[in-house]
Order: sequence, then structure tokens, then C-alpha cells
Amino acid sequence: MSDEKLPARQEDFNEWYNQIVVRAELADYAPVRGCMVVRPYGWALWENITAALDRRFKATGHLNAGFPMFIPKSFLEREKEHVEGFSPELAVVTIGGGEVLEEPLVVRPTSETIIGHMYAKWIKSYRDLPVLINLWNSVVRWEKRTKLFLRTTEFYWQEGHTAHATADEAEAETRRMLDVYVDFAVNDAAIPVIPGLKSQTEKFAGAQRSYSIEAMMGDGKALQSGTSHNLGDNFARAFNIQYLDAQNVLQFCSTTSWGLSTRFIGAIIMVHGDDTGLILPPKLAPYQVVVVPIYKNDDERSLVLGEVDRLAGELGDLRVTIDRREGLTPGFKFNEWEMRGVPLRLELGPRDIAGQSVTLARRDRPGKSGKTSVPRQGLAAHIGEALADIQASLYDRALEARRARTHEPKDFAEFAQVVEQGFAFSWWCGRSECEAEIQEKTKATTRCIPFDQPSGSGACIHCGQTSQSKAIFARAY
Amino acid sequence: MSDEKLPARQEDFNEWYNQIVVRAELADYAPVRGCMVVRPYGWALWENITAALDRRFKATGHLNAGFPMFIPKSFLEREKEHVEGFSPELAVVTIGGGEVLEEPLVVRPTSETIIGHMYAKWIKSYRDLPVLINLWNSVVRWEKRTKLFLRTTEFYWQEGHTAHATADEAEAETRRMLDVYVDFAVNDAAIPVIPGLKSQTEKFAGAQRSYSIEAMMGDGKALQSGTSHNLGDNFARAFNIQYLDAQNVLQFCSTTSWGLSTRFIGAIIMVHGDDTGLILPPKLAPYQVVVVPIYKNDDERSLVLGEVDRLAGELGDLRVTIDRREGLTPGFKFNEWEMRGVPLRLELGPRDIAGQSVTLARRDRPGKSGKTSVPRQGLAAHIGEALADIQASLYDRALEARRARTHEPKDFAEFAQVVEQGFAFSWWCGRSECEAEIQEKTKATTRCIPFDQPSGSGACIHCGQTSQSKAIFARAY
Repeated sequence: MSDEKLPARQEDFNEWYNQIVVRAELADYAPVRGCMVVRPYGWALWENITAALDRRFKATGHLNAGFPMFIPKSFLEREKEHVEGFSPELAVVTIGGGEVLEEPLVVRPTSETIIGHMYAKWIKSYRDLPVLINLWNSVVRWEKRTKLFLRTTEFYWQEGHTAHATADEAEAETRRMLDVYVDFAVNDAAIPVIPGLKSQTEKFAGAQRSYSIEAMMGDGKALQSGTSHNLGDNFARAFNIQYLDAQNVLQFCSTTSWGLSTRFIGAIIMVHGDDTGLILPPKLAPYQVVVVPIYKNDDERSLVLGEVDRLAGELGDLRVTIDRREGLTPGFKFNEWEMRGVPLRLELGPRDIAGQSVTLARRDRPGKSGKTSVPRQGLAAHIGEALADIQASLYDRALEARRARTHEPKDFAEFAQVVEQGFAFSWWCGRSECEAEIQEKTKATTRCIPFDQPSGSGACIHCGQTSQSKAIFARAY
Repeated sequence: MSDEKLPARQEDFNEWYNQIVVRAELADYAPVRGCMVVRPYGWALWENITAALDRRFKATGHLNAGFPMFIPKSFLEREKEHVEGFSPELAVVTIGGGEVLEEPLVVRPTSETIIGHMYAKWIKSYRDLPVLINLWNSVVRWEKRTKLFLRTTEFYWQEGHTAHATADEAEAETRRMLDVYVDFAVNDAAIPVIPGLKSQTEKFAGAQRSYSIEAMMGDGKALQSGTSHNLGDNFARAFNIQYLDAQNVLQFCSTTSWGLSTRFIGAIIMVHGDDTGLILPPKLAPYQVVVVPIYKNDDERSLVLGEVDRLAGELGDLRVTIDRREGLTPGFKFNEWEMRGVPLRLELGPRDIAGQSVTLARRDRPGKSGKTSVPRQGLAAHIGEALADIQASLYDRALEARRARTHEPKDFAEFAQVVEQGFAFSWWCGRSECEAEIQEKTKATTRCIPFDQPSGSGACIHCGQTSQSKAIFARAY
């Protein structure tokens, strides 16, 4: 790893981000334009994210399945808004087995259409409902400007697809899964998020209503971190997803879809990271603790490594790695694991052993303030507490940072200023034209209309029309 | 589900298989030719397979990663045998984001080439070796004749890719991972397999040596169930995967790759299934136990369902499903769960409750012989034993079936006869021309040259030349 310092976040957030991704070995640039290779450390983080979500999906009754990556091009054309939204971004297979295909296949940008086709085949009666399926896969959207994790041609995600007997049930499911995302973001990723409704401009192509969770990054910009769509009967009508109700009358289903992707890794980096690198929340970190043995000669070496083994045995419930590499100084190892964001470092040398103690260094508090000597006895409990405290502190810090940069500007001039580096929470008329003008003038868009609203009404921050709700405006990734 | 009986295995093995896959709801035909939809029940089986393998991969030091599905077409052309082997099977993306691509992208048929490109970038010194990476993904090979799980255009698998300093280490890794597959097949899937070396004709395109595990299906045909390839320095030379050794001399790496796919689900079906449907080995079954409550009126219903809940609570460590569906007879439910291969059925009615017992029915022993009444007390232990016994019995039965159909024919006439419905274990000269002639005459090919060999030498079963080893010959899926 290069010894060079990272650019400071304050000075070049963009370059700071790009370097962390590569130097922490989360991901690398693939030889195909816009694609990424997720390296083992990044993949381990993604596996922990998937496990945390999958547990929640299964607890709410969802089952996983596998759908093909290829979709006949004609399928996309059946839902008008959907095809308009996704057409410009498609990768198209025109040759298979050496022959030009009669009908080109698109590589799925999302699976609503092929899901619709199969659900129409499987669902016959109200007894078959609800269908609650989730897919873990990758999808392809041809992007002009790409950035590792945040916007890549191929990305990894989950896409949930459900079918229901009534519109109310579909709406309840859409909201339930948004709640699942909030719970995951807050409790596992230590990221405060704002759940709310998307504007008409920002909603999913083909949805009746889209909801999202929005997070503030370290530079004050917003990242849409998860979305949940009530598709109404749009796809049910396009694909004939119908069922016989209890009175034997044919009805259209109501469907939903919801997704969270490897973009979320970008959020973790940009919310928690600091000028020395990544900081990972303990609940998702591939390694929660790194043990760095410290010795000067062979005698010390065998003493220390013996103790390290005993110690690792006691920490069996945690994700622990021991850096046994020879020929590298402890300082070099400290830097490397700080770059990689391991929440807690455990240093162990002859002096610690003599004093029946170990040295703990918290990644979220660099320097002396985060370093303590703790007794060797009861170490597992002590480490458990430290990890819980780091998890809580990361959340509090992120929430405080968001609060400090969230404003309720009194007029549009102030609005234009605050969205340069933060969120504006402002009355908004709800009109797409007004939103487009705001974007043109300030580069900010509505992120969502939060569920949490003041009572009453007010004047739109831009056009002055009477508005029933306030929206979060921000520049967005 | 249709009430119609399955075709008998003896009469129409092919149709028996096709119907089981669809009627047990493992998979369905996708609207894209040759592709499949893996339904939740099939996916749950695959998740258990992946968990069983992933545990073993991690225990042997491998890390997972994510590589792109697109590979520049020119990459494939760098290894001569590799491109010859895979060219006829490629799906090619020629359009991206509405524009014709300068260089077409192939959808990965396997990832050796893009792995080679990245490893060349990451590996600098002997200190970076070995690199032990595994990918869980799907790959695409354009197939003319397809069959669910066994041969589909897109299939799911894992592909391991490792790089080593020496040829010996690569060979050791290749064999180690074949051993992992044997361990998984025997101990988790209850499938006896024959590990051995592939012939030159049957080896992976680009490998120096390929090994496989071969299993006998219920019709006497063979299924290659997992493969492990020593790629020598073929890909290292094609992609410049080099390292500086301890003497600071530039050396080529030796690499390996190894894979096991959703084909293995086909093996589970065809090895264990019977004329009433699927039979799943308890260690991999999505549900190990299905509970069917039996009652005739509302009073009995509340009595029985109350007891079922208590009982399910006691079986928390097992994968248990309770069939609470109303309006279906117990007999209908029995048939459905037999089709779906749940290893153990637990029936509970008022009479069982009065007698403080439950009725257990083993899926591997249909009819009365597999049905016993066991005491309610100590039920969890009793069920644990029954599942272990089913797991062992399935293996023994499969091994016995293979033994009964494995022959050592005395001449080629007998050889031609036995390979119609079984394996021939025969001396073979090792020449590709001889293998091609055997195939032309009998439709049988060498499956592998087993590690387990008699001493000495013999005359080739076909051409009579002196041969140093015996091969397994069979018709194959």
C-alpha cells in the first residue's frame, strides 16, 4: 500500500473517496468501461450487508428465488413509462451461439417485466396471494459517468417483488419494506436516514408511488440509499397478473418492488470515513477487531504470538483478524488497518503481557484519546462494550453532522446557498416544472417528502404557491 | 398441483425428471429460450448447497469476491484452447446505452480471462501469493438442447480461482478442492462420487489437467458433478500473471480454477428421487420436517393446532414447516410434500395427542414400513436420529445402486452392453482417437480415470493396446 496521505475530505472529497475505495481494497476498476471488481474486503462487507437484510426479509415472510439475467426486449415495451425510463441505459445481446438472435435480449436493468410474466403464470386464485419474493443478483444500466460503488454499469443489489390482492395490501408492503431499510440503515450501518415519498420526477419508471430513504454524505450531498415502489396495477395490467377472488371474479393484482444496492457501500464510506481512511460500523465490518502483535526479537516474538493465540481463542464470537505478517513495522500495520476502517485495534506487546493488560485503539477516535489500556481479564466483555459504543458513536456523530447541515431557509436566496453544502427542508408546491426550475438554478432536487411533517401549509420556497408539505432538497449523488 | 401420477422412473426417466422439477416447484421454464427461473423451493435448496460449500471454502482459506459479468471479446482470444472451447457458446453484447460498442462484450461463460487480467495487476511479489478467491455468480453458455438444472443457457455456480508460486502448490490446491467436493457430495448430499482425472478430450478448455467427481444417476448414466482444473501457467502466460520471487527473479504464477453448479441439483433429483417424487437429503433439504395437523371439526382443530405450535417450538434447531392450509385433505398434503421430497413427515391428530405420541413417516420408505408412532416425550432427539438415519440410508442406497450397475466387462461386446445402463470400469490406452471410436460405437465416453486403481497394467478394452490405468466409461448427461 502506498504511504502517501489521503487528500483531506474538506479539500477534495471526490478524490478522497476514489482513493479510499482502491487503497482500502474494497474495489478496483474492471477492464470493461464502467464496471467494477469488488475485491474480497469489499465483498465481505457486502456479504454482511446482505446477511443483515436477508434476515429481515425472511422474518417478514419473503423467500429468495433466481430469475434469468436476460429479458426479451419486447417485455420492456409493455409498460410505457418503464421502457421510456430504461431504454437509454440498456445493454443488448444480439448474438447467441454464433447466430444473430431473432429477438434481441436485454441484460436486466431491473426485473419487473420478467417477474410480471412469471407471476401471471403462477398466480391463479386469491389463495396464491400474497407472493413475496426477493432476488439477490446484479443488474446492468449503461452509465455515462461512473464512480466505484455509487454508479457502475453493473451493480449488485437485491430486488424484492411482491403481488397482492388489494391496493391497500400493496401499499402496506411498500411501507413495511421501507421500514426494514430504515431499521437496517440506523441499527446496522449507523446511518441516519430520512424516509419519505419521492416526487413525480424522481419516482421509479412505472411506479404509482416511490418511497426512499435519504442519507447525508460527509460533503453535505444526499445519497438515495434504498427505494420501495408501489407499482399499483401498472405491471399487473401490462402482464396480466390476475387472480380469481373469493367470489370467483377475476381481479388484477397490485404489485410492489424494492431494492437496496452496493451503492450503500458508498454511503458507508462517505458518512463515516475520515482523513485517514475508512471507518466501518462494527455490526457490518468484515473484521471487528485487528490484533497487532508487537515484539523486537525472537524471544518476545514467541511470547507475544503465544499470548495472541490464547486471546483470539477467547474472542471466538467476534470477527477477529491477527496481523502476523513479518517484516512490517507495527506503525505500517496500524496505518493499513486504519485505512481499511477496522473499528477496534488491539495491540499486544511484552509490556502489556507483563502488566496483564492489552492496549485498545478505537478507529473512530484517532490518536491518544481513543487509546486505552484495559485489563486482560474480562477482555471479551470489554471489547463487546467498546464495539457497541463505537457503533452508537458513529450514529450520533452522523446524526449531528446532518443536523448541523440541515436548514430551513427563509427565502430562495438562502435556499440556493444552503443546498451548496447541505439539505434544505422547505415548503414545496409539488409541481414538476417548479422542481425543474429549482434544479436548473441550484443543482438541487427534491430528495423526498419526509413522512415527518409540520402541521398546516406554507408558501413554496421557489414559486410561492400554497404548499401542503415540505420537502428535503439537496444536491445528490 | 396436478393429482396425476408421475411417469415411472423405469419407463420414462427423462419425463419423470422434467415433471419432478416443475411439480416440486424447484424451477420453471423462463420466457427466454434455454433459461430457467429457480423458484423459491429450488433456491432454498441451492442456498443450503452454497452454505455447505462456502463454509468449506472459507475453512480452507478462500475469500469471496465479485467480478463483472462482461468480458471484452479479445480477452478470450488470448488463450488458444480456451477460445476454441468457448466461442461457439457465447452470448455477445453489441449495443450499450443505445450505441454500437467498439469492442463487443461477451457475457462470461467462465471468468479465467478477466481473473487473469486482474491478478496480473494485483500480484507483484511472492509475498502476495497464494491468491485464493471464489466467486458465486451465474454464467452463460449458449446451449442448443437444454434441460432444467442439467443444461441451461444461464446457470448458477461458484468458480474458484487461485494463483500460486509453484506448479506443485497449484496441483495441491487443485486436488484439495476436488477433495472438498467429494466431502460435500458424500456427507451433505449423500451422493457417492468417483474422483479422478479427466481425459484429454474431456478436460477444460485451457487446463493442463482437469479432475472431476462423477456420480451415477438413477438410470445408470453419469453426471459430472464438480470439476477442478490445474491451469499450469497457461493463463499466467496469456495474461502476464508474474511475481518477483525471494531472489528477485520474475516468475510466472501457476493457477487453478474449480466449479460446482446448479447441475448438482439435477444430481440430487436423479440419484435420490423415486416414483412419487423428490427425496431430499436431510442436510440440504429446505424443510427437514413437515408437520401435517389432522382434525375433523373445530374442536379438534384448536386442540391439534395448539399442540402443533408447542411442538414446533421444541424443534427450533431443525428446519420445520407446518402445513396449516385449510380446505385441503391430509392425503392431498401428504402427496404434495412427498412430491417435494421433505425427508420426514410428522402427523398429529387427536388420537396421537391422547396417546401422547406423534406419527412419523419417512420419505425414503414410502407406505407403512416407514411409518412409526413415537412418544411425544424426547421428540426432538427422536427426530434428530431419524434424520441422521435417512441421511445415511440415502447414501447407502445410492452406493448400492451404483455398485449393482458398475461392471468390469471382459470384452468390448460386453462393454457395449453394460454402458447402456451403467458404468464400465475398464483398461484404457488413453488415446483420444480410441475414446472417439468408443463413443461412436457406444455413446459412452470416459468419465474419469479414478485415483483408485488396481496395480499393474492391462489391455485396452477397445483397441487392446497395453494400458497403465483403468477408466470409468458411461453415457453422460
